[in-house]
Amino acid sequence: MLSKNEIKYIQSLFHKKQRQQENIFIAEGTKIVYEILNSNYSIKKIYTTTKWLQKNFNKNNTIIEISDKEMERISGLQTYSPILALVEQKPNESLNPKGKINLVLDGIQDPGNFGTIIRIADWFGVQNIFCSEDTVDVYNNKVIQSSMGSFVRTKIWYGDIEKVLKDSKIEIYGAVLNGKNFSELPSIKECFLVIGNEGNGVRKNIMPFLKHPITIPKKGGAESLNAAIATGILLSKMTI
Amino acid sequence: MLSKNEIKYIQSLFHKKQRQQENIFIAEGTKIVYEILNSNYSIKKIYTTTKWLQKNFNKNNTIIEISDKEMERISGLQTYSPILALVEQKPNESLNPKGKINLVLDGIQDPGNFGTIIRIADWFGVQNIFCSEDTVDVYNNKVIQSSMGSFVRTKIWYGDIEKVLKDSKIEIYGAVLNGKNFSELPSIKECFLVIGNEGNGVRKNIMPFLKHPITIPKKGGAESLNAAIATGILLSKMTI
Repeated sequence: MLSKNEIKYIQSLFHKKQRQQENIFIAEGTKIVYEILNSNYSIKKIYTTTKWLQKNFNKNNTIIEISDKEMERISGLQTYSPILALVEQKPNESLNPKGKINLVLDGIQDPGNFGTIIRIADWFGVQNIFCSEDTVDVYNNKVIQSSMGSFVRTKIWYGDIEKVLKDSKIEIYGAVLNGKNFSELPSIKECFLVIGNEGNGVRKNIMPFLKHPITIPKKGGAESLNAAIATGILLSKMTI
Repeated sequence: MLSKNEIKYIQSLFHKKQRQQENIFIAEGTKIVYEILNSNYSIKKIYTTTKWLQKNFNKNNTIIEISDKEMERISGLQTYSPILALVEQKPNESLNPKGKINLVLDGIQDPGNFGTIIRIADWFGVQNIFCSEDTVDVYNNKVIQSSMGSFVRTKIWYGDIEKVLKDSKIEIYGAVLNGKNFSELPSIKECFLVIGNEGNGVRKNIMPFLKHPITIPKKGGAESLNAAIATGILLSKMTI
């Protein structure tokens, strides 16, 4: 049985400040926890409602059986899953962009969008994601859930993306409204691809660094394309 | 002030059965309601918390000023907007697929995915969407919200998609796991493009009709691409 303090502690991890202080994040669901167990992330605790899982997961992890009622209380999902893990965060290490396609996120705010972008990057074999300081926290539980576990295969760095682009020795592409038609892009082996904020696009201070502004031409009436969709379309073309 | 019965009535429209019985759906937010006002959809009632809106919207519509507290009660959004409209549903009319790119959805379940697919279709100028009977209801409030108003420019039909494909006189493409590389697709003016269910893909009974099975090749570790992302990537290639 979970103590009141333990429930409070887990619930507090849905808040960024507390997560950072504890250096821990929450991951839920069998698939995601399984991905984490097979990665170099370190799991601190697993809570489960299923006896079967206790037997089948690595004995080195602390596994605690809890009731459905308790899981409902600590879960951040609308429909709770049989498993919730507390996982150690990774340090914010600098990334080497040479020889690769690198994503740069300039203020992505929506956790679902960020998680989906991580999943897309992972699909197309893109590992490095450079994020502006105000990009939503990768350890936000909604980012973790919507990444479907793909975050274990991507490297995510937060910092001054303006400085990264300024110092860049590789080509810089960016998704904008009035750029070159993306369909004319060649296959690309090494670049930064900048994706802007959902509402406002790429920020003014970043714009001058986009040597190759690119656009997905609109044929119908929609006002905009979702940032994750744009990322998917551009990566599908670049990585051919 | 809203009566208890009116609040109950509006809340009941978050359920499909009630929506169908009343032939009404809910749309929230200034942008979406504005799109509807400029379309051939018929608005039955508008509830708003803002005096400004009362003045600026068409006088022919019944506009009711309500309090923030009342809006919070009738809204389906996490953060309610200043405007909520009750809108008349369209009849389920058959669509003519000739000379166009047509989407066929085989059991899309997630309202957010469906709404995003509608927005993508609208971006790429695709108007016709054929849906299997078990595809999530387009008038589900989450579909309407995530379509960002694009549903007013698309025509959506529900019915026996197997029969539609069987009787088809145009080419049929479908997103599958082991098809031809999508990057080899030519520009296409007329076809059906079949997108399968999020978890299970295209159903077995539909598979034999896919004359052109196509795939977005995976380079990394993610298990799957989201159905909406796949739709965006395939349409971006076909409509070039």
